[in-house]
Amino acid sequence: MRTILLLSLLLISTPFFSQSDDAKQIKAIYDQALTNGKAYDWLNHLSNQIGGRLSGSVQAQLAVDYTKAQLDSLGLDRVWLQPVMVPKWVRGTPEFAYIETKPGHTTNVPICALGGSISTPDGGIKAGIVEVKGIEDLEKLGRSKIEGKIVFYNRPMEPTQISTFASYSGCVDQRYSGAAEAGKYGAAGVIVRSMNLRLDDYPHTGAMSYGDTPVSDRIPAAAISTKGAELLSTTLTLNPDIKLYFKQNCKQFEDVESYNVIGEITGTTYPNEVMVVGGHLDSWDLGDGSHDDGAGCVQSMDVLRLLKETGYKPKRTLRVVLFMNEENGLRGGNKYAEIAQKKNEKHVFALESDSGGFTPRGFSFDCSEENLKQVQSWKGLFEPYLIHMFVKGYSGADIGPLKSEDLVLAGLRPDSQRYFDHHHAENDTFEHVNKRELELGAATMASLVYLIDKYGTITSAKIKG
Amino acid sequence: MRTILLLSLLLISTPFFSQSDDAKQIKAIYDQALTNGKAYDWLNHLSNQIGGRLSGSVQAQLAVDYTKAQLDSLGLDRVWLQPVMVPKWVRGTPEFAYIETKPGHTTNVPICALGGSISTPDGGIKAGIVEVKGIEDLEKLGRSKIEGKIVFYNRPMEPTQISTFASYSGCVDQRYSGAAEAGKYGAAGVIVRSMNLRLDDYPHTGAMSYGDTPVSDRIPAAAISTKGAELLSTTLTLNPDIKLYFKQNCKQFEDVESYNVIGEITGTTYPNEVMVVGGHLDSWDLGDGSHDDGAGCVQSMDVLRLLKETGYKPKRTLRVVLFMNEENGLRGGNKYAEIAQKKNEKHVFALESDSGGFTPRGFSFDCSEENLKQVQSWKGLFEPYLIHMFVKGYSGADIGPLKSEDLVLAGLRPDSQRYFDHHHAENDTFEHVNKRELELGAATMASLVYLIDKYGTITSAKIKG
Repeated sequence: MRTILLLSLLLISTPFFSQSDDAKQIKAIYDQALTNGKAYDWLNHLSNQIGGRLSGSVQAQLAVDYTKAQLDSLGLDRVWLQPVMVPKWVRGTPEFAYIETKPGHTTNVPICALGGSISTPDGGIKAGIVEVKGIEDLEKLGRSKIEGKIVFYNRPMEPTQISTFASYSGCVDQRYSGAAEAGKYGAAGVIVRSMNLRLDDYPHTGAMSYGDTPVSDRIPAAAISTKGAELLSTTLTLNPDIKLYFKQNCKQFEDVESYNVIGEITGTTYPNEVMVVGGHLDSWDLGDGSHDDGAGCVQSMDVLRLLKETGYKPKRTLRVVLFMNEENGLRGGNKYAEIAQKKNEKHVFALESDSGGFTPRGFSFDCSEENLKQVQSWKGLFEPYLIHMFVKGYSGADIGPLKSEDLVLAGLRPDSQRYFDHHHAENDTFEHVNKRELELGAATMASLVYLIDKYGTITSAKIKG
Repeated sequence: MRTILLLSLLLISTPFFSQSDDAKQIKAIYDQALTNGKAYDWLNHLSNQIGGRLSGSVQAQLAVDYTKAQLDSLGLDRVWLQPVMVPKWVRGTPEFAYIETKPGHTTNVPICALGGSISTPDGGIKAGIVEVKGIEDLEKLGRSKIEGKIVFYNRPMEPTQISTFASYSGCVDQRYSGAAEAGKYGAAGVIVRSMNLRLDDYPHTGAMSYGDTPVSDRIPAAAISTKGAELLSTTLTLNPDIKLYFKQNCKQFEDVESYNVIGEITGTTYPNEVMVVGGHLDSWDLGDGSHDDGAGCVQSMDVLRLLKETGYKPKRTLRVVLFMNEENGLRGGNKYAEIAQKKNEKHVFALESDSGGFTPRGFSFDCSEENLKQVQSWKGLFEPYLIHMFVKGYSGADIGPLKSEDLVLAGLRPDSQRYFDHHHAENDTFEHVNKRELELGAATMASLVYLIDKYGTITSAKIKG
């Protein structure tokens, strides 16, 4: 690209006309994030020195220790660990699966156990397969067609949705409830097509629930890679008598104690009003949890540091909360909300980053119309940073339990296109996180926190009034 | 992420209230691109079967043959090759460089010759180094400090610019003019810090020009990786007497004939008004040219296919032009404009995609205020697709020569954060292109072309009136 002088003359079309204090403070935040951010280095350690960190694992504890130590070094007013009991599910030795077209003729396919699943019997399971496009198909087929077979859930993520999260939510019931539902029809096990828009060889794990299925009636559940799913489906269509073999060795242990990690800057003026920014510290075990949700954690930590570095002292109390156990239990989010209620803490704002470390596009807000209008009035301040999305929508799993009529809940909305390529899979790794994109996310979050704190929400006005 | 039913209820906040014909047509374009796009497959072949394709190379000719054959298969009204003479610069055998702290103590550093540079003498060059932060430093230093030395241009890309293209244009004069300017002070050669926001080991090439420097006075120029630049700078600060050795074997041959590749759908109503959509077919040789600019080429090809597949017959003539020689000569863009003028063709619109295959954010327009207002009036139609940028700015190097007062020139503006990680380097490769992002870019371009064609520009209204 030979685009030198011409480019410099024509390209920049967002002039900084506004020299307001807010514009200056926000510029200072972005400059600091882009030149002296800490998020990327923290993520490097979390991902490469600690790695995948399921609730109850050694790595999860290392992550607690590491992030607490980092927060300790920031000169905050308080840093503490909030104990919480968490489930401890362990994958065990590697899973194994193959398609058998006839005895002795097998093709291996990549699978992984779904989180919370039981193991197969020691010898694995081999059974015929019935393919369905969703839970609703089970009833149409009936017990006679399902009993003793492996139910293969193969409804793919819908590609025409622009938001990949919308696509995901249209599909994920197969993973979450598929085994519980298929078990009612006597299935031997379930295999679920991975929640991935790409065709590749990575199985994507994720939580599932047996609901109220008695322990003795539970059947094992695994995810198959999208290419494996295509192969299985095609082969099954050509020959309905093929069998699938799979073996997995996962195990649920007794709950163990873990922690939410919390750092706090006490508010100078309204210390009783609490703002939370956070992500979840646990991750699935196949990758290193970089995008889900190491990125959200380190961004949240950097929000506090960015405000300090730019000389802004919050009027309200600001906390970073690194929630434990979002992936398979939500115990951390629930515990935080429970303690907050016990202590009668007034939360006015909570912001979660749990959609990856990709280029930030904006926020979705779960709040009243009045509060939404207020945050939308700040859109102009974010335009130079290409932040354009201020919509009503989902905030975050960990902060959801705090929800109340007066609370402004928000979720950072990064670009979603690549997220599910990595989500819950072996390739959720550090090299897929771009330093600038991560830093822009942290700066965007810090800027919103700044505005919320400076002006207060409609709610906090009411509290004082 | 356990975000199932709640997510589906709350996340989608962009309802398709508008059931206008335009909204429907645009939805059809995006649906087609996301479910049945061809761009990614074409790019796969271009990148993995052909690869890096400098003007005048065998691969460039293969790229011409391949893209022509693909356009031939689309059932367009015309497909043809437009001959154009192009420079033929060849890199030759691999470059080699080391820092020598004292005789026998060397550290290799990654370099690559800049495009259009001369080679070093057969034995290479070894000389002392003088580091500068820009061309303006040469005059301050003066001939006595520069003569016989290697000038090391080490002004990095400015990280606080949100648009990485703005950052690039603030830096690239060092690469383009560095050797011509340093040569005036008797330098032996130049080494330029790569135009890359990351710290890594990839040298990034790119065009340079000797201006009117006589051939006998020209000095060799190479780019050094950003990590190499940091090492060189630090070592030089510790010990100003170190030397740098480098050897490169590049060569400029006589111009050769190559081609722009053009496909056309003749307009049904105003066939004399021409709209162009395009990218550049040549690429640098270190990577496979996926983002620069294979992505732009295949997106442009898919624009015509998407309109056909969605049943839209343009009223005006629509051409895809795959320009040869953008990287080191602009001969293709100039030739196209020259022929268009000779034939007295009335171009009303030209759109180039030459900023990578990343998630589209919008467009920048080089056009009159009236025309800008018109395109901005369509912003609402693009909101469901998260296209938000309709700004005044640079269009594209290849379509720039067409510029006239009445012409609407536009450039697709994808997210810029990752672009310069790959730009002109060995890691501009296919696996860094995301299929959905590429498809969204093609759909976004096709949708704008549709609107321009359906409503005409202010200009084309004048032409008819």
